[in-house]
Amino acid sequence: MKKHIVLLPGDGIGPEVTASAQRVLEAIAEEFDHTFTYESKAIGGYAIDEYGTPLPDDTTAACKQADAIVLGAVGGPKWDQNPSHLRPERGLLGIRKELNLFANLRPVQGFDNLLHASPLKREVVQDSDLLIVRELTGGLYFGQPSERRNDGASVVDTLAYDRSEIERIVRKGFEAAQVRKKHLTSVDKANVLESSKMWREVVEEVKSDYPDVTVDHMLVDAAAMRLITNPTSFDVIVTENMFGDILSDEASVLTGSLGMLPSASMREDDFGLYEPVHGSAPDIAGQGIANPLATLLSVALLLRHSFHLENEAKLIESAVADALDQGYHTRDLHVKGGQVINTEQMTGIIIDFI
Amino acid sequence: MKKHIVLLPGDGIGPEVTASAQRVLEAIAEEFDHTFTYESKAIGGYAIDEYGTPLPDDTTAACKQADAIVLGAVGGPKWDQNPSHLRPERGLLGIRKELNLFANLRPVQGFDNLLHASPLKREVVQDSDLLIVRELTGGLYFGQPSERRNDGASVVDTLAYDRSEIERIVRKGFEAAQVRKKHLTSVDKANVLESSKMWREVVEEVKSDYPDVTVDHMLVDAAAMRLITNPTSFDVIVTENMFGDILSDEASVLTGSLGMLPSASMREDDFGLYEPVHGSAPDIAGQGIANPLATLLSVALLLRHSFHLENEAKLIESAVADALDQGYHTRDLHVKGGQVINTEQMTGIIIDFI
Ligand SMILES: CC(C)[C@H](C(=O)O)[C@@H](O)C(=O)O
Ligand SMILES: CC(C)[C@H](C(=O)O)[C@@H](O)C(=O)O
Repeated sequence: MKKHIVLLPGDGIGPEVTASAQRVLEAIAEEFDHTFTYESKAIGGYAIDEYGTPLPDDTTAACKQADAIVLGAVGGPKWDQNPSHLRPERGLLGIRKELNLFANLRPVQGFDNLLHASPLKREVVQDSDLLIVRELTGGLYFGQPSERRNDGASVVDTLAYDRSEIERIVRKGFEAAQVRKKHLTSVDKANVLESSKMWREVVEEVKSDYPDVTVDHMLVDAAAMRLITNPTSFDVIVTENMFGDILSDEASVLTGSLGMLPSASMREDDFGLYEPVHGSAPDIAGQGIANPLATLLSVALLLRHSFHLENEAKLIESAVADALDQGYHTRDLHVKGGQVINTEQMTGIIIDFI
Repeated sequence: MKKHIVLLPGDGIGPEVTASAQRVLEAIAEEFDHTFTYESKAIGGYAIDEYGTPLPDDTTAACKQADAIVLGAVGGPKWDQNPSHLRPERGLLGIRKELNLFANLRPVQGFDNLLHASPLKREVVQDSDLLIVRELTGGLYFGQPSERRNDGASVVDTLAYDRSEIERIVRKGFEAAQVRKKHLTSVDKANVLESSKMWREVVEEVKSDYPDVTVDHMLVDAAAMRLITNPTSFDVIVTENMFGDILSDEASVLTGSLGMLPSASMREDDFGLYEPVHGSAPDIAGQGIANPLATLLSVALLLRHSFHLENEAKLIESAVADALDQGYHTRDLHVKGGQVINTEQMTGIIIDFI
């Protein structure tokens, strides 16, 4: 298989973890006789510094030509005081919108030897295995108007959805549930929001196309509670952009392995952008000690969802599990009796397992 | 002191817990020589059944004449399929808006002998003591337009705030912090929403009026994580309506004592509506076994915030703590070596302590 991958290293530890991703992709290519080509492009704070914009046209153009994208992370204190059009996260929001990456997939899974780092009791969190399917290109994030009014005396943002935008993400939720435990929880605030009422209607309409999936509706406030009190009661959660932002970050800390969580942001076809859930960690950037595993698990998602290379994906996932099982971990994690190694060593170990 | 209190029992266990509240208010009145008068009015599902609307005019009128309001709970499966203007929660939203109850105060505190019921590890959650100050009459809940468009092909909700609405709730947050640990966390999504940018500006503007308070800004997704990983790092959180809905419910399950949490919804003056955080619990309604303690702690807030009766408030709070310490609890809680009692018995015990 011949594929072209754009790397968007971004800021902080982003360059370090994307370098690790590229090395592992190369190992996979060699092992399975694929040809992957790479191109690195600027995004986020780095792009602001180099080109005066968080998302250069050249980056967007390259991404549009690619078969898939790996992103490191964007952001850092250096740009925190910038005006909003010159902030690193604008690059991320821009690329999502430009490439129509409307489906954000965030699996949350525990790793047995990391569970001790969870703030939750082991008996509550153990065996959690859920997937948040978040709408990523609509809602409050992009709705217009979003502006000051009356000479700055008031302000509005707009939560806007087309029915078709709701339908396509809801279908992604059902499809994801079909290949998992066949249980979909649709999260909304239908007792208050008109958009949530439409959301609920759409779920009710399309559910007959997925008779093998059990679906229930939950209010966002109830879901925020239940994620903590009973995380194992979820399989797939599907929700709109802002609720998804909040709930997926909430979910990401449940198992104590934030540094291990991958994500995929997909277009209607198999094209996607893959990135670790953790941020740019400016405090440890450039030291070679970042944990590359969330990015490598994101690469596994890339191979599975964009290239349909299931065996290759599984190989990375089991290499990561094996590395942890053998006690190898980066400084951000604690594994009893384990051994602390750096980014390069971890990458080497994963490649050895491959 | 002579005061008039409107009781809004509502649905499910609402009537049982408001009856308990009235008995305890009477005990306080007797002990301290106050005269409290009461009037019970319909709201929620009960009002829908009796008067065809979740908020009869008569209820609103009585509330406007009152010195304070105690609400039980609204909602239940009976009305879940109703069209939205005939749903119980419309009564709650309506009364908040009609009476301008813009400041929702939700203290979250652990009780030592209930902490074992927390999904969080004891070392994470113990000593948590936070207050969420939620804006309650603006934002997505009431912004217009909130409607279908293009023949139902799209939908919008509107997140709208006047600068003055932001300022008054932010000031409530600062004031609350001043009488607590002097630490305010303002939660927004300023990297995405224009309304959040204004929110942050307002906080920066007014903070010089509260030089004794340390204030920081946190993104809502980060706050959703931090509530779980480090709840003790918060003192007062101030945030807009929808973020507050989600975060306060999230926070309510941290300490394992959801059944113990009170809330106050305040107007600009000292007028307020007081209600337990837990819902109507239709499954145990009418059995006399509901836990009245969250409602009684709400009554304590009423005495403190609306009537400035600090001693009376403290007396109820210590009676509740004493009852728990002596092992008395309702069926919803578990206290090691404790004794399960019903609503009436618990009310009696609290009154005995008074
Ligand atoms: C950086 C920010 C704009 C972004 C979001 O809110 O979508 C981030 O929190 C995320 O979840 O990917
Ligand atoms: C019942 C519902 C409309 C209400 C809200 O969302 O405000 C409730 O969840 C609350 O927090 O009081």
